[in-house]
Amino acid sequence: MNFPSKLIEDAVSEISRLPGIGKKTALRLTLHILKQPESFSQSLTAAISKLRTEIGYCKKCHNIADQEICSICLGTRRDRSTICVVEDIPDVLAIENTSQYNGLYHVLGGVISPIQGIGPEELKIDSLLNRIDEQLGSDPVQEVILALSATMEGDTTSFFITRKLKEKGIKVSTIARGIPIGGELEYTDEVTLGRSILTRVNYNLE
Amino acid sequence: MNFPSKLIEDAVSEISRLPGIGKKTALRLTLHILKQPESFSQSLTAAISKLRTEIGYCKKCHNIADQEICSICLGTRRDRSTICVVEDIPDVLAIENTSQYNGLYHVLGGVISPIQGIGPEELKIDSLLNRIDEQLGSDPVQEVILALSATMEGDTTSFFITRKLKEKGIKVSTIARGIPIGGELEYTDEVTLGRSILTRVNYNLE
Repeated sequence: MNFPSKLIEDAVSEISRLPGIGKKTALRLTLHILKQPESFSQSLTAAISKLRTEIGYCKKCHNIADQEICSICLGTRRDRSTICVVEDIPDVLAIENTSQYNGLYHVLGGVISPIQGIGPEELKIDSLLNRIDEQLGSDPVQEVILALSATMEGDTTSFFITRKLKEKGIKVSTIARGIPIGGELEYTDEVTLGRSILTRVNYNLE
Repeated sequence: MNFPSKLIEDAVSEISRLPGIGKKTALRLTLHILKQPESFSQSLTAAISKLRTEIGYCKKCHNIADQEICSICLGTRRDRSTICVVEDIPDVLAIENTSQYNGLYHVLGGVISPIQGIGPEELKIDSLLNRIDEQLGSDPVQEVILALSATMEGDTTSFFITRKLKEKGIKVSTIARGIPIGGELEYTDEVTLGRSILTRVNYNLE
């Protein structure tokens, strides 16, 4: 495609680096931005810049947070005896939107994947164990729900965490396999996802 | 949807103002931007800001241009005796990508639409007439091709421009309306089909 201006070309190439946006959509967005008043692109770029530079992560659960500790960890109505372990931040949002879960979360930041060179040390697994130890005195954790993707990497990670937690004598469950095998948590519909939390089963190593 | 951070919420609401991008896609893009290195969002926002503040328009044809006059108007291999009148900038790109046209363009910036309060004065119609007068000495314009949408507004605009140009004795044509290439007769709407019969052209075997 030939562009009438280097500025258009640059904007199209930058926007088309976003996932699911091709050159044609990027061009449509670029020309839309051009047609809007300058305040439109100003507030758009300001929001994106601020997002990337000012965002913080909760020191406890590693979810996104505006303060040191996120609003879920600080929530007084939350059941502090249950921790739901998820792969990434979108998973927290997805589970929150089901309104079926009222405990705390723990964001691993990924799953164990030898192919991509991600070992247990790269994930927030130690942080999870420390957190459980710290809570022992005040709010002992009674159950850890593993809500990881139903992939080989997810299963490996579940297995690894379960073995660590069994040593501590904590009940470990995993969300029900209502999720199609090979499916990603982020794209599962709310009803299926909510139901799979309610019908979670004990995670047995045997 | 509840967001864990005001920054996420702001970014999602800004991104979802773009055409064809809903809240869910905006959230996906937002979380993608968060995961990338800071240089990613920096170059994205820089390209968008620069696009909106530094872009220029060609003084002759009102297409996008990096200099005062766009590369098409300056092109030495262009047929300067033909001007194709289009509604907006994407139309220029679309026609250029067909590689079937080698003349100049004129971007109106819209079509006459009494309902939206757009009269002929709001469009670059006077500029088109002036341009034709200016070119009279050096490269007289022989044909004006109207490539406007096949809507009531487009037809009204074509009619208005044709009347103005007839006074100058310039040949005016409009792009063919008919069944799209590859289109099935059975699924073509009645108006298009009726019109394509009325405006039938001689079928030449040679």
